[in-house]
Amino acid sequence: MALAYDPLFISSDKIDVVAAPTHPILLTQDDLKRIAAYKAVDFVQSGMVLGLGTGSTAKHAVDRIGELLRHGKLENIVGIPTSKKTQEQALSLGIPLSDLDAHPVIDLSIDGADEVDPFLNLVKGRGGSLLREKMIEGASKKFVVIVDESKMVKHIGGSKLALPVEIVPFCWKFTAEKLRALLEGYGCEANLRLGEKGEPFVTDNGNYIVDMHLEEDMGDLGAVSDAILRLPGVVEHGMFLDMASTVIIAGEFGVKIKNKHTTTCSCS
Amino acid sequence: MALAYDPLFISSDKIDVVAAPTHPILLTQDDLKRIAAYKAVDFVQSGMVLGLGTGSTAKHAVDRIGELLRHGKLENIVGIPTSKKTQEQALSLGIPLSDLDAHPVIDLSIDGADEVDPFLNLVKGRGGSLLREKMIEGASKKFVVIVDESKMVKHIGGSKLALPVEIVPFCWKFTAEKLRALLEGYGCEANLRLGEKGEPFVTDNGNYIVDMHLEEDMGDLGAVSDAILRLPGVVEHGMFLDMASTVIIAGEFGVKIKNKHTTTCSCS
Repeated sequence: MALAYDPLFISSDKIDVVAAPTHPILLTQDDLKRIAAYKAVDFVQSGMVLGLGTGSTAKHAVDRIGELLRHGKLENIVGIPTSKKTQEQALSLGIPLSDLDAHPVIDLSIDGADEVDPFLNLVKGRGGSLLREKMIEGASKKFVVIVDESKMVKHIGGSKLALPVEIVPFCWKFTAEKLRALLEGYGCEANLRLGEKGEPFVTDNGNYIVDMHLEEDMGDLGAVSDAILRLPGVVEHGMFLDMASTVIIAGEFGVKIKNKHTTTCSCS
Repeated sequence: MALAYDPLFISSDKIDVVAAPTHPILLTQDDLKRIAAYKAVDFVQSGMVLGLGTGSTAKHAVDRIGELLRHGKLENIVGIPTSKKTQEQALSLGIPLSDLDAHPVIDLSIDGADEVDPFLNLVKGRGGSLLREKMIEGASKKFVVIVDESKMVKHIGGSKLALPVEIVPFCWKFTAEKLRALLEGYGCEANLRLGEKGEPFVTDNGNYIVDMHLEEDMGDLGAVSDAILRLPGVVEHGMFLDMASTVIIAGEFGVKIKNKHTTTCSCS
């Protein structure tokens, strides 16, 4: 990756103004993920308790935090990993770790998302860590979401991509069918997520995931959320409603930062 | 147990009229549980798919079903057990078993409860099987609850006895504290359920249970239910709202049968 990070941004206290590159540079999706991730790490201050996200975008943020710690630019950080995978990554980078039991209030969480709507509602969990992510990010004073521009949607869940739901393994077919029937009106298919060898994918909590593929806008997301959670056998779903405080969106022509409860975002 | 079952009841098609004994007989709590259980098994017909409950009262019902099968008075029964314990009991009695995946619609479930309110809302799960019970009993055309009269309460959850909540083991202290804080206004204490050796009690689904001890009426049970289910880390709770179709209550002076959507119950 030849692209340097710093030239893309003007350092500024006013975080919602970010400069664009003066001329287009061909950026890969991974470049964009890294740009968003590095920008999010600008929010990190020494002494913070940090929720560490999971997935290909969050991985860049964790790498960056490790780098800043190593160079002495950050100190006294405590990381709370959202998955076993992130825990391993953070340990390998020398980031001190703890958990929610010891740190029930988190200063800042940084994580990716699979979909983001204009109200900063998210779909997460295609990486399989939705439950721990929701626990940790829900306990955070500030939750910064980092995405490339391909993740922005008009409404979440209706893109035919997966809305993941974590369920108990016991009679999973029964629960998957209940989920499908519940969301039938939105053109729903419900598929058990499989691992590499065709066996059921198992979450860090020992559960299964059903991926709900929807064709249409679900309308009142809060009502759908409650209806899903009321099904016995469901542990958690991947809609993160009204949780993100900031979304950093990296696109080919610059970076947008959208803050909760602001109607406009600055963009380049 | 010297007390015979049959003399206590007049056989009748009108199942909500049951005769009392003509003179008081000293009955133990276990006698009362058996009386309620046997009465519930009167609802069972050959060819039914049956949800088999868990606990000291339901155990009598499963025993009775096994007995009737053995004597040829019932045929072609398929049992769906609500716990590994009930599965073992039913297997030992020769009751053919299946599961929700193969039988997603159940004709009749019979199970005990820890508390029953005047609207037939229940607290269940002090035996630890609330999730499987809720899945199976929620899939039943008819759900008959069997209790002795000590289980009848004015409002569920406020008796200082436990309202059980099944949670994932990951950062259970964090989730238990969230639960306590959520129900703090009702004088709530939240205690992790322990096994015989002081280790955390583990459910059939590999989860923990937090017992919520409440001092006061929770008011709008549906709203409290949704609020509990919205906490990430919560798998299920022990309030069974609007699920029971019939409650059979055995007391020292006879048996009451209360049906859903009827304002009065016949009693002796």
